[in-house]
Amino acid sequence: MVSAAFCPLAVSLGDPAGIGPEVIAKCWDNRETFGLPPFVVIGDPRSLAAVWDGPIETVEDPREADSAFDYGLPVIQLNAPKADLPGHPSVAGAHTSLDSLEIAVGLARSGSASAVVTGPVAKEQLYAIGFQHPGQTEFVAERCGVSPGKVVMMLAGPTLRTVPVTTHLPLSAVPAALNSALIESRGRAALRGLQRNFGIAEPRLAISGLNPHGGEGGQLGREEIEIIEPAIAALAAEGWCVTGPHPADTMFHARERAKYDAALCMYHDQALIPIKALHFEEAVNVTLGLPIVRTAPDHGTAFDIAGQDRADPRPMAAAIRMAAENAAMRAEAVA
Amino acid sequence: MVSAAFCPLAVSLGDPAGIGPEVIAKCWDNRETFGLPPFVVIGDPRSLAAVWDGPIETVEDPREADSAFDYGLPVIQLNAPKADLPGHPSVAGAHTSLDSLEIAVGLARSGSASAVVTGPVAKEQLYAIGFQHPGQTEFVAERCGVSPGKVVMMLAGPTLRTVPVTTHLPLSAVPAALNSALIESRGRAALRGLQRNFGIAEPRLAISGLNPHGGEGGQLGREEIEIIEPAIAALAAEGWCVTGPHPADTMFHARERAKYDAALCMYHDQALIPIKALHFEEAVNVTLGLPIVRTAPDHGTAFDIAGQDRADPRPMAAAIRMAAENAAMRAEAVA
Repeated sequence: MVSAAFCPLAVSLGDPAGIGPEVIAKCWDNRETFGLPPFVVIGDPRSLAAVWDGPIETVEDPREADSAFDYGLPVIQLNAPKADLPGHPSVAGAHTSLDSLEIAVGLARSGSASAVVTGPVAKEQLYAIGFQHPGQTEFVAERCGVSPGKVVMMLAGPTLRTVPVTTHLPLSAVPAALNSALIESRGRAALRGLQRNFGIAEPRLAISGLNPHGGEGGQLGREEIEIIEPAIAALAAEGWCVTGPHPADTMFHARERAKYDAALCMYHDQALIPIKALHFEEAVNVTLGLPIVRTAPDHGTAFDIAGQDRADPRPMAAAIRMAAENAAMRAEAVA
Repeated sequence: MVSAAFCPLAVSLGDPAGIGPEVIAKCWDNRETFGLPPFVVIGDPRSLAAVWDGPIETVEDPREADSAFDYGLPVIQLNAPKADLPGHPSVAGAHTSLDSLEIAVGLARSGSASAVVTGPVAKEQLYAIGFQHPGQTEFVAERCGVSPGKVVMMLAGPTLRTVPVTTHLPLSAVPAALNSALIESRGRAALRGLQRNFGIAEPRLAISGLNPHGGEGGQLGREEIEIIEPAIAALAAEGWCVTGPHPADTMFHARERAKYDAALCMYHDQALIPIKALHFEEAVNVTLGLPIVRTAPDHGTAFDIAGQDRADPRPMAAAIRMAAENAAMRAEAVA
């Protein structure tokens, strides 16, 4: 149980037709088992009631959530034109999910909430209503006045944290997208995030290679020599504890994981394969580089199983717990 | 303990200056704990004696190994000009390691040994004496009269087996190296290997995508649509149970792993990251598509720690155990 000596967390409901409402409600149901601090949901209470019979406590202000949390799931009510049916996303639902996200970020920015946890949204639905960002992360960054290029995604589980240098690119586009400046910038953001969000004074970052066996001295690719090694040298020259380039296949077993606080990976699957193989139910998406703490469960809306009481609340619980821990760490650093 | 109703296994010593002798000797020491059947080493007994004080039983023929195995480590003696010191590879040692491999394969081909387990060699050392193959696997294939293009490498652990379609290529060369015929051919070899070596009558093969999220319907790369899906359709049309393309990051957690017998992966690290993250000490390299059973521990010579009693024998033990199991499975199918 995280100390609740600060404001509750703001949780955006995500797309109301997805599994967001169900997993958030289940988190409240299991708040003691999961060790969750008070949180307040921003959304349409009807979306919760459609998939859950538990008590809802409508509140006007996050400050009321703390005391209400013992009696029901605190909700800051959004006036959606209609409630979506689970599994049936709509334009109205997309608008509600965006409003929910925007208010949650605003509450955290103003200090009324200690952190933001975002429920899963459907990008296609958002694009259909004119959403211009690649995803929620970039939207949150913009609302916080931070260039999307300065924030990084970290996947954090109990025994491994990974940060991808490049994310949603075709694999064939990855080599050309890599350069030393980008690796340095992502590495720096990861290292600072380990300090600010995780309270690690002298963080250790293991940087992967791109090619099999880390390029085998240039025999299997030269990106390690020409791009990655110079970035490592530059970060080391700034005083950071960085190692690599490590062959990606041998850096994720238990003995190696114990040697670093996060792994900086060159592409999406290099970062996500190991974290999901090892920590599928507990991996949390943490956005580093923001003035606020933001986490999210690493799953989507799963429209196909919404409303069937089949969604696993553990990733959402892990995201809520980690948001509280990160917020506490930041509050401690300020105090 | 695997039934020893058939011939012993032939184990090549690998480079005598590497950790091969040490891990093989430790396997004999711990043969009961590890549940190992009788095996015979082909190599220079002095290389074993240099790192191990246990009893060596010199034999002329594998058939003697069965009874000798209780009293000492059976060795078919190679007359090396001199014994290498651990950690100091030499030209002579490279020749011995190649002789050892060749004899081990010959014993298995002639039926005097039930399978071959290969100790780790140093490719640079072998290249220096004129070795023309990319690695031991291709050499074994050629000695068995099989085109190297027809054999595939499988990494097998207790809860996951993976087969890479492409192996030692720079990452930037992977997309161009993929084509439907290659994926089909590797898939077929993997499926037949699951039948022959693992006794799975109707094997299930999960085929990965190449790009993040499996290409997201073409948004993040078109290889899934243009290359991988046609290969899957072709294999399915032959009656094989194949699924995919699966997003690589979500196919390796426990619930997904339970749905298939092997994963066919598009590139080296996609196959090796999950197997080593999950099963570092127990992952075995199995060569499929050969007339004989051949396995190997998935590690190198580790010259830097040779002779220091620090090498972990578990991967070699897993390789010996799996060779025996695979050989028993094949023998059963023939009987």
